[in-house]
Amino acid sequence: MSNSSVVELPVLQEDAPCCPPVTSAALSEADSVRMAAMFKALSDPVRLRLFSRVASHEGGEACVCDIQDVGVSQPTVSHHLKKLREAGLLSSERRGTWVYYRVEPTALAAMAGLLAGGGAV
Amino acid sequence: MSNSSVVELPVLQEDAPCCPPVTSAALSEADSVRMAAMFKALSDPVRLRLFSRVASHEGGEACVCDIQDVGVSQPTVSHHLKKLREAGLLSSERRGTWVYYRVEPTALAAMAGLLAGGGAV
Repeated sequence: MSNSSVVELPVLQEDAPCCPPVTSAALSEADSVRMAAMFKALSDPVRLRLFSRVASHEGGEACVCDIQDVGVSQPTVSHHLKKLREAGLLSSERRGTWVYYRVEPTALAAMAGLLAGGGAV
Repeated sequence: MSNSSVVELPVLQEDAPCCPPVTSAALSEADSVRMAAMFKALSDPVRLRLFSRVASHEGGEACVCDIQDVGVSQPTVSHHLKKLREAGLLSSERRGTWVYYRVEPTALAAMAGLLAGGGAV
């Protein structure tokens, strides 16, 4: 019936920029679930420090060997890095012995965008 | 011994702007505790929606009566608003029958500042 072989796929929410600043519009229920999961990943002090160590590392990428000195055991570091990956905040790549982590810029921009617009204080 | 009656108080961390963007510097342990508590307050979808409803409400202020229609009971709304207050994200004021909520601009700016600098995606 269609005159085109191109199927229009629904826009995946994961790829859409999210969201307008909280100061300009109330969040939808779906967006609140998605964004709350990202904030949850940053709600633990050790996890937040690991995230900041990756984000601030030279070249925007860190070997787990560069960032694991945060006062907890190596398995705990791995657990937290896994949570950050699952929440879409970090990506990882194994190279030889080590796993390298990068911040997912889309996730960081989504969180920053949501909280922006409060103005300087 | 002092030639001045003015006592220099240490700068309270609560009043200091926090923090450099995660992309520019790793968080200190103390700052990570403080900022993780703020993100924790936003880690629940209903709480995040309530926060966005207050933040986006006309005049930057919302009566609890304006924002409580988020699909949970009124006591649950109260519980979440209390958590947001305790985390320093909202302030409240009772006027007559109703309590009015405002976003704390310093807290919003601290979170936005920490996540800023990721660049547009």
